[in-house]
Amino acid sequence: MDALGIDIGGTKIAAALVSPDGNVTTVLSRPTTADDPERIIASVAELVEELSGPHVLDIVGVAAAAFLDRGRDNVYLAPNISWTNFPLRARLVDALDRPVLLENDANAAGWAEFQFGAARTAESMIMLTIGTGVGGAIVESGKLLLGGFGAGAELGHLIIEPGGRLCGCGTRGCLEQYASGTALVREARVLLGRDDVSSAELMELFEHGDERARDALEKVGAALGVGISSLVAVIDPEVIVIGGGVAAAGEHLLEPVRRSFQATYGPYGGRPTPDILVATLGNTAGVVGAADLARHARGGAL
Amino acid sequence: MDALGIDIGGTKIAAALVSPDGNVTTVLSRPTTADDPERIIASVAELVEELSGPHVLDIVGVAAAAFLDRGRDNVYLAPNISWTNFPLRARLVDALDRPVLLENDANAAGWAEFQFGAARTAESMIMLTIGTGVGGAIVESGKLLLGGFGAGAELGHLIIEPGGRLCGCGTRGCLEQYASGTALVREARVLLGRDDVSSAELMELFEHGDERARDALEKVGAALGVGISSLVAVIDPEVIVIGGGVAAAGEHLLEPVRRSFQATYGPYGGRPTPDILVATLGNTAGVVGAADLARHARGGAL
Repeated sequence: MDALGIDIGGTKIAAALVSPDGNVTTVLSRPTTADDPERIIASVAELVEELSGPHVLDIVGVAAAAFLDRGRDNVYLAPNISWTNFPLRARLVDALDRPVLLENDANAAGWAEFQFGAARTAESMIMLTIGTGVGGAIVESGKLLLGGFGAGAELGHLIIEPGGRLCGCGTRGCLEQYASGTALVREARVLLGRDDVSSAELMELFEHGDERARDALEKVGAALGVGISSLVAVIDPEVIVIGGGVAAAGEHLLEPVRRSFQATYGPYGGRPTPDILVATLGNTAGVVGAADLARHARGGAL
Repeated sequence: MDALGIDIGGTKIAAALVSPDGNVTTVLSRPTTADDPERIIASVAELVEELSGPHVLDIVGVAAAAFLDRGRDNVYLAPNISWTNFPLRARLVDALDRPVLLENDANAAGWAEFQFGAARTAESMIMLTIGTGVGGAIVESGKLLLGGFGAGAELGHLIIEPGGRLCGCGTRGCLEQYASGTALVREARVLLGRDDVSSAELMELFEHGDERARDALEKVGAALGVGISSLVAVIDPEVIVIGGGVAAAGEHLLEPVRRSFQATYGPYGGRPTPDILVATLGNTAGVVGAADLARHARGGAL
């Protein structure tokens, strides 16, 4: 049977039916009404209504761009949606009249890569999602690391430059300030000497082999490599997966990442060195992970 | 029944009988013959022989200052003992003729603090053991984080100063280079203008309120606070426990640690802030943790 996955992002809500082996059979979406939480609940209910049927599991997996409590019931806060101490799971259960599995979106995407994507043969992995910010997921011994208060794997807030750039979180020198899509565009603007460089233009310059675009990506890759060295000391994953929009640069990004990692990583203790790979599921990872987590919560591969 | 725990350190091998509630009822020790692995095995066998009896569990828990593989069978490498790719668990099983549970020493100490010490009411914690170097343990959802290759929670090798001091591991700027006992003595020697300051003298100066000794501890505390901020972003523990020899400074150390943590930590996402506490079990944590892990592996609170 297919499982139903929802991914509530800052700009759109995606919904999909996902097979037991992680294939998306149907996908729908609605805009996210970020300032109207009630409308978001209604949109999710409409999407679920459209996709449910006799051959679809009753439980719904929902990924959300939000800080969740450890019980995966409530939203502490969402950076781009007006939810503060919001009982999201209970509200969804009421509106959908069926069980709901709630997870952070970066964790859901990481779970999808772990089950079906770049890390499918590993038992442990780290995923870094490089978009506007830097999200993260950690899987250890086949389980997502949730954190004591539910906010684990906020890998974008690892400090790689003490006293460095001020981050939106209040800390200085977070990885996100050096290795996000935002940081990439900032670097490119400096190197190109113009303030109107968009990420789309940057990707185009990049495709045409523009040296300055390369240099900007090189800097982002170098920062990521330093962050990964620290993360490997702490987590020791078998595989590191790089996903999100910036990962579309593929080997052009991974090459400087690997170089920086090799230069900053001490393979102390004689253990093997992890692989660094590009995510393979693209922007469906969130719905695929949410659906698969729901399937597991429901009790195995139905 | 008591469980039997062994802690093989760089200079001594400790052995103890440990009750189900973590109390040490008997303790023995032998010097570690670091360059003679066969003699270490024989010493462990003698200690086990002395401590076993009809009211002691047959399984033996062994903590070792070594990098272990994920299966907890083999030593990749030990910084202070001549073990390289050494099948330690099989050798101990042969010599002791009973089941053996093997764990890294910092992990065993962390487990003891989690079960019986400073973090006993928490479900998740990080422990930093500040001795000659900086060791670490991570407990998430009631389980030790082992890492994909068995070398997780090497928290001393988190990079807090990119391009900074060269570490023995080959990386530059590791936490261990700024927040270990070695780093503390180095700071004190600079501040006191003498090369012959020992850690014992430093502690004495400290007790007498010497400003320079305080300043040295302040610097170590500041570095620890930065490292903890990064670790909280990645792991999100309920509690952070500081143990090891340097933790004997107690609140004199914790006060600058907390100040630095508060200054560098962004409580993004609205989650609660973890407590930072001093370890309570002292240098018996290794044997207590090893014994308790063996008890759990054996099948519960016999």
